[in-house]
Amino acid sequence: MGFNLIQIVSLLLLDCLCSCWSKTPTNGSAPNIIIMLMDDMGWGDLGVFGQPSKETPNLDRMAAEGMVFPNFYASNPLCSPSRASLLTGRLPVRNGFYTTNAHARNAYTPQEIVGGISDDEILLPQMLKKMGYINKIVGKWHLGHRPHHLPLDHGFDEWFGAPNCHFGPYNSSFRPNIPVYNNSQMVGRYYEEFKINVKTGESNLTQIYLEESLEFLRAQASIRRPFFLYWAVDATHAPVYASKRFLGRSQRGRYGDAVIELDYSVGVILKELRRLGVAKDTFVFFTSDNGAAVMSGPKQSGSNGPFLCGKETTFEGGMREPAIAWWPGHITAGTVSYQLGNIMDLFTTSLALAGLTMPDDRIIDGLDLTPVLLNDSLIDRPIFYYRGNEMMAVRVGQYKAHYWTWSNSWEEFNKGINFCPGQDVAGVTTHTQKEHTMQPLIFHLGRDPGEKYPIRQVFRPHPDAATRAVLVPKLLHCSTRRETFGGDACGSANVMSGEYQAILQKISLVVEQHKSGLVPGVPQLNMCDLAVMNWAPAGCEKMGKCLKAPKSQPWKCEWPH
Amino acid sequence: MGFNLIQIVSLLLLDCLCSCWSKTPTNGSAPNIIIMLMDDMGWGDLGVFGQPSKETPNLDRMAAEGMVFPNFYASNPLCSPSRASLLTGRLPVRNGFYTTNAHARNAYTPQEIVGGISDDEILLPQMLKKMGYINKIVGKWHLGHRPHHLPLDHGFDEWFGAPNCHFGPYNSSFRPNIPVYNNSQMVGRYYEEFKINVKTGESNLTQIYLEESLEFLRAQASIRRPFFLYWAVDATHAPVYASKRFLGRSQRGRYGDAVIELDYSVGVILKELRRLGVAKDTFVFFTSDNGAAVMSGPKQSGSNGPFLCGKETTFEGGMREPAIAWWPGHITAGTVSYQLGNIMDLFTTSLALAGLTMPDDRIIDGLDLTPVLLNDSLIDRPIFYYRGNEMMAVRVGQYKAHYWTWSNSWEEFNKGINFCPGQDVAGVTTHTQKEHTMQPLIFHLGRDPGEKYPIRQVFRPHPDAATRAVLVPKLLHCSTRRETFGGDACGSANVMSGEYQAILQKISLVVEQHKSGLVPGVPQLNMCDLAVMNWAPAGCEKMGKCLKAPKSQPWKCEWPH
Repeated sequence: MGFNLIQIVSLLLLDCLCSCWSKTPTNGSAPNIIIMLMDDMGWGDLGVFGQPSKETPNLDRMAAEGMVFPNFYASNPLCSPSRASLLTGRLPVRNGFYTTNAHARNAYTPQEIVGGISDDEILLPQMLKKMGYINKIVGKWHLGHRPHHLPLDHGFDEWFGAPNCHFGPYNSSFRPNIPVYNNSQMVGRYYEEFKINVKTGESNLTQIYLEESLEFLRAQASIRRPFFLYWAVDATHAPVYASKRFLGRSQRGRYGDAVIELDYSVGVILKELRRLGVAKDTFVFFTSDNGAAVMSGPKQSGSNGPFLCGKETTFEGGMREPAIAWWPGHITAGTVSYQLGNIMDLFTTSLALAGLTMPDDRIIDGLDLTPVLLNDSLIDRPIFYYRGNEMMAVRVGQYKAHYWTWSNSWEEFNKGINFCPGQDVAGVTTHTQKEHTMQPLIFHLGRDPGEKYPIRQVFRPHPDAATRAVLVPKLLHCSTRRETFGGDACGSANVMSGEYQAILQKISLVVEQHKSGLVPGVPQLNMCDLAVMNWAPAGCEKMGKCLKAPKSQPWKCEWPH
Repeated sequence: MGFNLIQIVSLLLLDCLCSCWSKTPTNGSAPNIIIMLMDDMGWGDLGVFGQPSKETPNLDRMAAEGMVFPNFYASNPLCSPSRASLLTGRLPVRNGFYTTNAHARNAYTPQEIVGGISDDEILLPQMLKKMGYINKIVGKWHLGHRPHHLPLDHGFDEWFGAPNCHFGPYNSSFRPNIPVYNNSQMVGRYYEEFKINVKTGESNLTQIYLEESLEFLRAQASIRRPFFLYWAVDATHAPVYASKRFLGRSQRGRYGDAVIELDYSVGVILKELRRLGVAKDTFVFFTSDNGAAVMSGPKQSGSNGPFLCGKETTFEGGMREPAIAWWPGHITAGTVSYQLGNIMDLFTTSLALAGLTMPDDRIIDGLDLTPVLLNDSLIDRPIFYYRGNEMMAVRVGQYKAHYWTWSNSWEEFNKGINFCPGQDVAGVTTHTQKEHTMQPLIFHLGRDPGEKYPIRQVFRPHPDAATRAVLVPKLLHCSTRRETFGGDACGSANVMSGEYQAILQKISLVVEQHKSGLVPGVPQLNMCDLAVMNWAPAGCEKMGKCLKAPKSQPWKCEWPH
């Protein structure tokens, strides 16, 4: 954290040297900021991250011109909490985007949620406003859909998009379709004015979101004010969709079509920045809100590359994200950074780039990545993996310790809901909430990115022989082939013991420090009520699209996993 | 195959126009050929193929300057048969590199194997000799170690390396250490003159193999004769090793150290080609002999990226390989080809590049890839996945049908030998040899590279409900969340049925055609005998390193998987 302060101070000094509170983008101070946030896109969905079809030439080029982060994380394996972290710089357990209805449950903002982003939280656009930024969100908000939760009440100047997921179509008598807003007014609803054909997968929403962004960029470039664009497109969230001219283009099916259209759109945006002459004054960051939703099957979900499980879980597949930073003339082209990054860092880094000091009345979990981006520094920091208010796992360096493991319940699994399809690691992808706090399962993510081989715990033989075979895989040739390795290669399992103890000691300190300083925020995702759904959003009168809300009957939301 | 003929004829015409049988490398005719064959390296081990540590800058650059093949295959999930295919252009079941001792078994050339490459096979260097090429193999041969099996008897002019895997160290009274040859003479043995420290992983073998190659390149460049270099390094085969200065450099452990050293060596070789002024006259192809040996654990094996299982299996992880073609001025830089390629194509393509006609007295399975390399064409062709003499699976376009599935036996699995650690797909990664010939399991590898979601078979409800839940994963939100998709998204499993029938029909034709024309070669890997081991290789007298062979007592080799 010392580094942060030095960095902030030096940026402030630099800023003042370049004439204090300058509002024109100049070299190194107050660049425009674009955050491109994908929805349920997996680490393995980009060519540059190893997608076998390699259908993302624009993102691959963006990576070649910028910095790639193969160790970048979401703050949560689910959409709303992760998005709340991006904009607040804080873990969901601090900013309130979690539930206490049951132990270690994922929660988000469906239509019946009562809560949303608290007015007590300080959001990135609120901070950027102080430096004269114009802030726009295009796409999915997902921090609550009741009037006081919406983006224009939380620092954004403009919004085109929707407050919730594009689930539907709904019969408006039991459940309204999700509204689409232009700023403070509803301009239609999904499946009504804004079509999504769930049968063919056709929808021109990505094109609309692209156009909205281009218009904003052009307008800001012409008045030369710094801007923040939060491009939160959702074509890769089930039901996935693409425009007509992109449908059928992918080797990967409909999900791939959506990726190709998003990749195309990224290319158009970067090209537009160059055409407008602001590329060197614009910091662009591309990432995703959580891992690919592999439970949705191959036609509706992406790939988490070599990682275990997906969305909803605290295995790597649930939270490791594709991430690319781009800022021509500032970030060295073609760099790969090993820095452990987190979506919360986008809050902190953006403030640093804008020359702002951090809020000092609360704990900020995000790290200022500017030394990484500009000098290829490496900063030591842990990654915490939460489900609800339970810290399930922590990563320190290359090591990850699981204190709790859970995929989902047997009950849900037996219904066919599988968060880890084709990936069963005995004792790891458990269907009961399994506590390991006394003896965490530890993995080395460098040599074992798939979390398949827990490092052996010493002096405590595992009671279950079948599990042990998986815990300590023997080398193939040791016992069964006539050609055998030397004794050391065969006996190497024994060498691991020291490693386990040394790492556990190191990680325990990090966990203790984290837990001792943790004061959870008020949980916002506990209560549900059909009355709060999008029955009559502002602007519905003009369109004649107001629906009658049922009587309020709040209940404790059920969060099954 | 018609394309092949046209290509061959046109190359021959071109060749004659440029003065028939020219031996100097000229634009498009008779380039030098370098095949860099890795040992047990996985598809996911290179940065350009998505390895999260991104530690292969030289290979990534080679890819950026050349053509990447994300759909390139080994001919077999095991070393010896795959290598025999590379040099003969034929499936192992045709060139004899298989066993009939038991059904669908992998076999290779351990020290006690009696057989090896048959004199009836025509090898690539024998063909290239006709065009004046000088041929050298550096590294592992693995096509048999008895005198008449060795490289200099099969078309190579030079050899530095070993006939078998670097297993050991052995007590020379029961089993000799593997000899290292310089051409026809043994110059030492592994663990004796050529050290490998299995405890620390230190060995300078990769450096020796690099130096041997550089000397060869320099010598050929100076006399301006076309050359073929087969660079068959084996540092990534367990027990993995690296030179002292590379040990500890990787984030991935010792296996990663070996990869870094190989990557460095590739960089040195390509740089040397440029320095010698022959880069534009040299076709270089990089690939691996089979998938990563994931059964060896995280310290001794690599990554198969998003693919299922590894070495020894006919799932994608066993046979999908990293592959890069490089030929500056001829292959367009930065191209990704979707062509289904196979290691056998290196035989056929090399002949086409050298202006040679194919042998016409036998079936050649390799495809001439020159239209792909030079014009980015796409040629329709199937990929066959064999285990022994059983066709386990076939890929046609994006679809793969499994006619037999097997990982390994329960007996071996219970001993701790796991070919699919952390990857259990019910009904797919079976521990009994499971026949599906009447109703093959079909996967779409574009949207499901991990072979996790078999496409639903129609009108035949699966008897096992638990398996069915995995076969037809439900969409998460359909039944359990209040926010639900439209009926189509939830019911999409039903849409798949037509797909299954249509694809099965297409694939069945390909399989029938393949099987009707198949005449298996004489199996070479059936018999074992301790007497044939490397007791007294040529040259041992001069070194005083001849050992006494035991009496011949041949037996049918056991191939457990």
